[in-house]
Amino acid sequence: MKRVETQILKLLLESEKSVWELLDTSWFTVKDFIDAINRLFSEGIIGVKNDKIYLTEKGLKIVGKRVLDFKVETCDVCERKGITFNGEFKEIAEKFSQIVRDRPQPDASFFQGYMREHDVISRVALMHYYNDLTDKSFILIGDDDLLSVALALTGLPSKILVLDIDARLGEYLSKVRGKYGLNIEFQQYNVSDPLPKDLVGKFDVFSSEPLETLSGLKSFLSRGIACLNEDGVGYVGLSTAEASPKKWKSVELMLLKMNCVITD
Amino acid sequence: MKRVETQILKLLLESEKSVWELLDTSWFTVKDFIDAINRLFSEGIIGVKNDKIYLTEKGLKIVGKRVLDFKVETCDVCERKGITFNGEFKEIAEKFSQIVRDRPQPDASFFQGYMREHDVISRVALMHYYNDLTDKSFILIGDDDLLSVALALTGLPSKILVLDIDARLGEYLSKVRGKYGLNIEFQQYNVSDPLPKDLVGKFDVFSSEPLETLSGLKSFLSRGIACLNEDGVGYVGLSTAEASPKKWKSVELMLLKMNCVITD
Repeated sequence: MKRVETQILKLLLESEKSVWELLDTSWFTVKDFIDAINRLFSEGIIGVKNDKIYLTEKGLKIVGKRVLDFKVETCDVCERKGITFNGEFKEIAEKFSQIVRDRPQPDASFFQGYMREHDVISRVALMHYYNDLTDKSFILIGDDDLLSVALALTGLPSKILVLDIDARLGEYLSKVRGKYGLNIEFQQYNVSDPLPKDLVGKFDVFSSEPLETLSGLKSFLSRGIACLNEDGVGYVGLSTAEASPKKWKSVELMLLKMNCVITD
Repeated sequence: MKRVETQILKLLLESEKSVWELLDTSWFTVKDFIDAINRLFSEGIIGVKNDKIYLTEKGLKIVGKRVLDFKVETCDVCERKGITFNGEFKEIAEKFSQIVRDRPQPDASFFQGYMREHDVISRVALMHYYNDLTDKSFILIGDDDLLSVALALTGLPSKILVLDIDARLGEYLSKVRGKYGLNIEFQQYNVSDPLPKDLVGKFDVFSSEPLETLSGLKSFLSRGIACLNEDGVGYVGLSTAEASPKKWKSVELMLLKMNCVITD
């Protein structure tokens, strides 16, 4: 039985669940997940009742209940992030939520979406954990998440430059800069265009939530890495919902060939 | 300033620390760490008093105390592992500690050492989180940690085969098998020898704590991967204390070229 299938069966053994609840805790692509659901259904291992998916008698026989005696849960303190933040970060989380309330809404034509606010602060905290915040120069390749605002609120980075295709973001950041005195620079830029030469090798840290097509990933990552100096560091978001193991492998190979090491 | 240096300074800003305390929280190689300590000392940025390292006046000026207002800590619930375990795992942790009390002691000539007992159970729990425990066939390339015993105590794997160079381990496991009725097979094997053909492609999961020389890593990992079937999975330990970023990069490239994806 495939790994995606055993995961679904284990979740259903705990209790019946909606397809969304199952999908939410899956670390496989949506496509592989749906294929597995269909396969399990057609084989009579799972059934559907009142929009909930459940294990059939046949399914129950296959799984074996002893599995349930062993409880493993995602750490509910850090949500698998491995770090927790406190002190000024708590205040910054609140300020950040207030400031971004009137953020530009995602524009589907740019394939935008954004991280939860708590996750943005967690990312900044992770950077601090790795000492990549204080006195560091940042370049953000895309900034749907307004990470720039969270970074600037700490007052720790020496420079924050946002490259983004969306001119509305530039206007918004300019307003934020004026109103809250935050030091964020903006340059309109389409990752399919060549990188402005004066940015190459000039930054300590880049961060990006790339488009998850392979060509999109390549553009975002190669731009980000080109902007780094020798000891530079990148923070990149990649999901398992849209990117298959095969795509992960390509991206990882790409990063290593660009002389990067994958850490977390 | 290099990343390893800023990390040391941030830790010293909290309080003076012994070199061991600093090293314990460092994620750089021991060599890079010691080089950094020496450089900071020769530049008068840190000093030593009563075996404790402290920031000098000059050092304090360089760091800037605002850094301290931002608290990020390793999650103290999961210790950056991201998962927590409960239920039967608690009992198995206790049984495991009892059973391994008379384990063979590490033999320096084999470059052995072992994980803390809690970490062994955490590894088994992580496997269960990823559904890689129930009904899976395991091959362990080396078993200094006695992971085989922890795995067998769950009763969930369908097969556990240990390959290890150390005949004493085989004797010990045979005793454990008899005394506690645990189903663990042992085969004496030196990773520098060719892999027995009947093991190739036969297992769902391998686990290994390889020798951290590049050739050692290559032997352990290639053997492990060769034993896996198509949908197989490997759990591998690699430190930052002995393996430089350059070595990490080589190992990651190696894994990708062997058609693996790096997940956590």
